[in-house]
Amino acid sequence: MSIDPRDPVAVAQALIRCESVTPAEGGAQALLESLLAPLGFEVWRPTFSDEGTPDVANLYARRGEGEAFVLAGHTDVVPTGDEARWTEGPFSGAIAGGELYGRGAVDMKGAIACMVAAVARALDGGPGLAGPVAFLITGDEEGPAINGTAKLLEWAHARGERFSGCLLGEPTNPEALGDVAKIGRRGSLSGTVTLPGVQGHVAYPHLARNPVRELAPALTALLGEPLDEGTEHFEPSNLEVVGVRSGTGAFNVIPGDAALQFNVRYNDLHTADSLMALIRDRLDDALGAGAYALAFEPANADAFLTAPGPLVEAVSAAIEAETGRRPALTTGGGTSDARFIKSYCPVIEFGLVGQTMHQIDERVAVADLETLTRIYQRALGTAFG
Amino acid sequence: MSIDPRDPVAVAQALIRCESVTPAEGGAQALLESLLAPLGFEVWRPTFSDEGTPDVANLYARRGEGEAFVLAGHTDVVPTGDEARWTEGPFSGAIAGGELYGRGAVDMKGAIACMVAAVARALDGGPGLAGPVAFLITGDEEGPAINGTAKLLEWAHARGERFSGCLLGEPTNPEALGDVAKIGRRGSLSGTVTLPGVQGHVAYPHLARNPVRELAPALTALLGEPLDEGTEHFEPSNLEVVGVRSGTGAFNVIPGDAALQFNVRYNDLHTADSLMALIRDRLDDALGAGAYALAFEPANADAFLTAPGPLVEAVSAAIEAETGRRPALTTGGGTSDARFIKSYCPVIEFGLVGQTMHQIDERVAVADLETLTRIYQRALGTAFG
Repeated sequence: MSIDPRDPVAVAQALIRCESVTPAEGGAQALLESLLAPLGFEVWRPTFSDEGTPDVANLYARRGEGEAFVLAGHTDVVPTGDEARWTEGPFSGAIAGGELYGRGAVDMKGAIACMVAAVARALDGGPGLAGPVAFLITGDEEGPAINGTAKLLEWAHARGERFSGCLLGEPTNPEALGDVAKIGRRGSLSGTVTLPGVQGHVAYPHLARNPVRELAPALTALLGEPLDEGTEHFEPSNLEVVGVRSGTGAFNVIPGDAALQFNVRYNDLHTADSLMALIRDRLDDALGAGAYALAFEPANADAFLTAPGPLVEAVSAAIEAETGRRPALTTGGGTSDARFIKSYCPVIEFGLVGQTMHQIDERVAVADLETLTRIYQRALGTAFG
Repeated sequence: MSIDPRDPVAVAQALIRCESVTPAEGGAQALLESLLAPLGFEVWRPTFSDEGTPDVANLYARRGEGEAFVLAGHTDVVPTGDEARWTEGPFSGAIAGGELYGRGAVDMKGAIACMVAAVARALDGGPGLAGPVAFLITGDEEGPAINGTAKLLEWAHARGERFSGCLLGEPTNPEALGDVAKIGRRGSLSGTVTLPGVQGHVAYPHLARNPVRELAPALTALLGEPLDEGTEHFEPSNLEVVGVRSGTGAFNVIPGDAALQFNVRYNDLHTADSLMALIRDRLDDALGAGAYALAFEPANADAFLTAPGPLVEAVSAAIEAETGRRPALTTGGGTSDARFIKSYCPVIEFGLVGQTMHQIDERVAVADLETLTRIYQRALGTAFG
């Protein structure tokens, strides 16, 4: 069966039918190779490994020589959950009521299909491409993200590949196509505070030291004052205490220690280092230096921003032309592979409507696939400016 | 081998050699029967049962008719721990360096031996007993305390047994014989506070509600203000938060709920009911009624006090006569079977030095066994006054 690469619905259906639950390739990248090669792309499919993590298949394809404009995404999807609860099979690619069903429909096989279709239309019956274009596709975005985009970028850079800018097709729109493009992300930093105590019998508190007494001041130190008021493109940084643990479960034992876990999503006023120092200062003030232990998880996701400029304007204008609305330019939400790409070139994210992502009955309006294809094609037309 | 009941060391050695780790009888109560019957005691050995708990052997013995003065204790002991770490075997009853070693040496086979010896000496070569005396001995003090003293008292009361007062031989002295007699105990009440939240991804806090934010005010409500200043015979009531739990362990998930466990040791200013109301009021003020759930464990240990009077004076005077010191009259520490006895007659606790109780190398100075025997005999001589 031959698939028309200019038809985003047909491409999306074919991709959804590949069972590429992370880290499985499931045939999805082989399918992309079969679509891109005839369009004049040179295609590489490196597999990356790391001890303790699964091997992951990746795809890099380029058409044209020199600094390429990158279309980026991932073919892996999250698990289906209970398949019996899906209205249409999660790997069926069935269309019902004007919507295409399937795991990955919006996150993000649908957007990859639109990218392929945009390029195919430009080349076949369109104005052609104004410059070199590359596809940067991983199978490890929903997994540990060890053997995916980060290594693919290193691999490409080592081969001499250079990039002028990147459009990443993650689902960015909360309600309708055109709502939001993301021009950066907050950083993420996690840590654990441990409060030492002396375990003992609850009837003899003078022989013990209850670490829970320090929990309230520790919580107040972390949660009491906002970290900042936000910046032009970023919401205020936010700290959440995501775990607290103390005690044996018995009512007659004073606990020997207490621990709390926290995560901060932070804006461009901070780096991981400055934030670690700030948190330590606040805890020192509340508890006294040396009265607690503080350990941070490895920090690898500082905040970043693609400042409004030619790339952001090209994508925003394309969105406005096709939807009639200028997207909000935000930096909220969780992390994405843009955190790796931003070290190589400016990156902007725009994709489908994310409402059903990671849920039972993930689905996309067929009409949105056509609109997103047009947006991508229009953005490509000006992105080389 | 015949044991001289007037010799507390020989009786204590013989009791220690019975392996009566709770709930096993181990021959200890059979031994007591063999010693008390020849002294003119009528001996009953009822076994009590309850679904889900082990059957437990108990002993009740009385000499003389009418309201009896009760000598109370338990023959069961806690487990030995690693026997290889004991200087002398935990069931050896060996004497080394002037100390008698073994599990139960101070808690409380040693004290039972002194009670037997005190009675034997009064009857054999002494002034006799001025009134009826009973032994109330359980094998379920270190266990769940379901099939022990509580049921033995019910059983005895139903048979028409009545008591004028009770001396319970738990180890009460922190440092040296004569330090402390206990004339009551604080009550104990346990409960759990649950704070509801809405689980969510840490990057989207506006879609979740983090229950940990309520933990600090909940802790402050429980720990911020003392419950009282104490009373004439009681220390201030004390609340300890003995457990806190929230979170999945993951750094990217806002917890769906949080819970804290607490225990209060309370004095005679409170009952379980009044304390429950006080705690609920404080949480209502801090969190708002309905913003949390509060569940109490079954309450069965209100504070009690044997007010200074003839019984307390008889025991205190006997201690002073033999040690040269008047004991402090306290109500601190953990619960004991006195909480059951106090409903039937006044009860005072005085026994050996508790330093090694429940530890490897539990042991008692041989000299203390002789002194405690004299104290018990002297107290018996005046307790019928």
